[in-house]
Amino acid sequence: MQAEIITIGDEILIGQIVDTNSAFIATLLNMNGISVKQISSVSDDREHILKALDEAKERADIILITGGLGPTKDDITKKTLCDYFNTTMRFDEEAYQDVVNLFAQYGKEVTPINRLQAEVPAICQVIRNYNGTAPCMWFDVDGKVFVSMPGVPYEMKALMKNQVVPKLKERFSFPAIFHKTVLTQGIGESALSIIISDWEDSLAAVNIKLAYLPAPGMVRLRLSTKGSEESKLRSLVEIKIEELQSIISEYIYGYETFGEENDTLEQVIGKLLKKNNKTVSTAESCTGGFISHLITKVPGSSDYYVGSVISYSYEIKETELGVSKEVLEKQGAVSQPVVEQMAKAIREKYHTDYSISASGIAGPGGGTPEKPVGTVWIAIATPEKVFSEKFQFGNHRERNIQKTANAALNMLRKELEGK
Amino acid sequence: MQAEIITIGDEILIGQIVDTNSAFIATLLNMNGISVKQISSVSDDREHILKALDEAKERADIILITGGLGPTKDDITKKTLCDYFNTTMRFDEEAYQDVVNLFAQYGKEVTPINRLQAEVPAICQVIRNYNGTAPCMWFDVDGKVFVSMPGVPYEMKALMKNQVVPKLKERFSFPAIFHKTVLTQGIGESALSIIISDWEDSLAAVNIKLAYLPAPGMVRLRLSTKGSEESKLRSLVEIKIEELQSIISEYIYGYETFGEENDTLEQVIGKLLKKNNKTVSTAESCTGGFISHLITKVPGSSDYYVGSVISYSYEIKETELGVSKEVLEKQGAVSQPVVEQMAKAIREKYHTDYSISASGIAGPGGGTPEKPVGTVWIAIATPEKVFSEKFQFGNHRERNIQKTANAALNMLRKELEGK
Repeated sequence: MQAEIITIGDEILIGQIVDTNSAFIATLLNMNGISVKQISSVSDDREHILKALDEAKERADIILITGGLGPTKDDITKKTLCDYFNTTMRFDEEAYQDVVNLFAQYGKEVTPINRLQAEVPAICQVIRNYNGTAPCMWFDVDGKVFVSMPGVPYEMKALMKNQVVPKLKERFSFPAIFHKTVLTQGIGESALSIIISDWEDSLAAVNIKLAYLPAPGMVRLRLSTKGSEESKLRSLVEIKIEELQSIISEYIYGYETFGEENDTLEQVIGKLLKKNNKTVSTAESCTGGFISHLITKVPGSSDYYVGSVISYSYEIKETELGVSKEVLEKQGAVSQPVVEQMAKAIREKYHTDYSISASGIAGPGGGTPEKPVGTVWIAIATPEKVFSEKFQFGNHRERNIQKTANAALNMLRKELEGK
Repeated sequence: MQAEIITIGDEILIGQIVDTNSAFIATLLNMNGISVKQISSVSDDREHILKALDEAKERADIILITGGLGPTKDDITKKTLCDYFNTTMRFDEEAYQDVVNLFAQYGKEVTPINRLQAEVPAICQVIRNYNGTAPCMWFDVDGKVFVSMPGVPYEMKALMKNQVVPKLKERFSFPAIFHKTVLTQGIGESALSIIISDWEDSLAAVNIKLAYLPAPGMVRLRLSTKGSEESKLRSLVEIKIEELQSIISEYIYGYETFGEENDTLEQVIGKLLKKNNKTVSTAESCTGGFISHLITKVPGSSDYYVGSVISYSYEIKETELGVSKEVLEKQGAVSQPVVEQMAKAIREKYHTDYSISASGIAGPGGGTPEKPVGTVWIAIATPEKVFSEKFQFGNHRERNIQKTANAALNMLRKELEGK
């Protein structure tokens, strides 16, 4: 069984946006055992869309379409699908109620233009979009399934995960497949590949594929296998992951399993703090609030996160975090005594059990021969001690901020896990 | 004149990598007046590649191909092109010398497998790749040009910019094209489309196309036009944008023009503050550091950004931001007096000219009938005054954080621009 993805919209063809939707959809389908034959991006043009649909139908059984469903004049996907399937428009009361409810949430009334969004081709089945005004449409014609989804990534993702894939699984018989991803922090891709080389070679015998998925400051290792029984596949993978744990335990901070609750570093920390009834605060310099943002992205983080001082100037470091002027002048803001003083001060000031601090040169400016761009100090304060570590990241401002935040959260994670 | 892009390689179809090459190529072509009709990602499969080439040739005059040029077995692009153009392989001495030189740089000798990379289809013209071992190939057949490039982004980018586009410009006469994008904040897509409906209708007469590009908390409006003289096109677009300014001035926070420096809300604020030699601080509750993160993502933000107090608890609001216990207890943390006290306090404490504060219910928990999830108060303090606004966003935690940050930055932007 094969699928195709068609993305509709001039913004991709003029290069204004990178098509991340297709990669998301392709990953999700592959995770469920469905391979993608082709991805096509086409313009908001009737003839062109019709031709793309025909071509895709020739090659695949499942055709997933995104984009061109907005309420405005340049969005013509729905009308074109109507023509393609030789049907007329009908007004879908349920889809309309979803639009009404969504507007009500914002304290607004539905405009006539948005009312039009509840019109759909008569032969389609509406899949409710709980995050936006454009309904998702399912067409089952000549043994092939076409699904038209909005192009807004957040709406599309929720639809794909919660509704479209489960519905496709009911409609077609998918092979069993099992993936689990091991999340590592604190070691690079090539160093990792050397350490786990023998283990990696042993995967072939049990038909498990390994993929290295690097992300800023971390490497994810995805193990995948296909077969007929999911429970068997799962236990094969779990055995291999246990073996891996015995080799690189200190770098592993979590796991991702498709369709189950997954871990981010900030969620892992949140769970550990909650379980032990502990709290944390942060004192950030180069990360400018990004560590706090990651921590507070997690629902319920107010149970263990108290707050932060972001000190983007020497003055604030002195007045709010009690960093001594002498140390700042002698050793600079990016130094071990400064981050340790910051961590200690915020922990005491905000009355928390733990604290994190970071100070570094994110770039592009501010580097010196002794402290080039990417130099970062991170400290953790606990009820018993303060400890710190120096990192040397790269030249890219945003990646330096991300890497610093990940490294800082990982230091706290290891401390909380007693590693 | 139209172009098509074909990317070859299974890694895109399994979702392992996001296809950023196509967006780069599309942007470059559009900047040069060539529109892209379709982007197709196909597998490393002979029949599939042949079909994609045929389909692209039907629609376009220029076909740009990336990927599948590696030295390993699964890379079959070159052989398939040979078949497609009904030609044989020849050994290209110059391409071979480039491979030899590249290996010499790393102190290595050319392997037999890499020697094969200097073999190319007989009818092609080799475009030298100075950054890798796979030569770029140019085919000029039946009045159409096919260019096959390696998929490594850094090799492809150098080839496109320095060799392929200049060569295409010699071969074809390119039309002039002009795009400009208007960035708006504080109004939804459909409300916007109603207000600007007449203006939108007037665009057809001057041959300008409009696209709505929504992003969390903002809508981007892209105007595009084609013709013979760029300066003429630019002034046509500028006139229409001036008209638009007179209609929705308060929502416009910036512009994006292809190939020129573009604006984000945080960059616009940075420029305004820098120009006027002013500083800003923040006091964040529900955004948990995200406003600070956006501000400090901008290089050089330490010139105008001093720091923040993130108060995720009542206690910190009281002790660090002087919010009165009485108000907190009577009106709750998400209220007008609280955000106004927060903004005032941080401005004074951190000695800045301006300050931003935000307090809201990001969700999913914490909502009440009077203050449902998504209720947010934002305040701005200036040297003269404090003002605030209430927002009602949606149910999604992360989007509420993003929307709050955007709305807050936009309030400051309007204040700084005197709007």
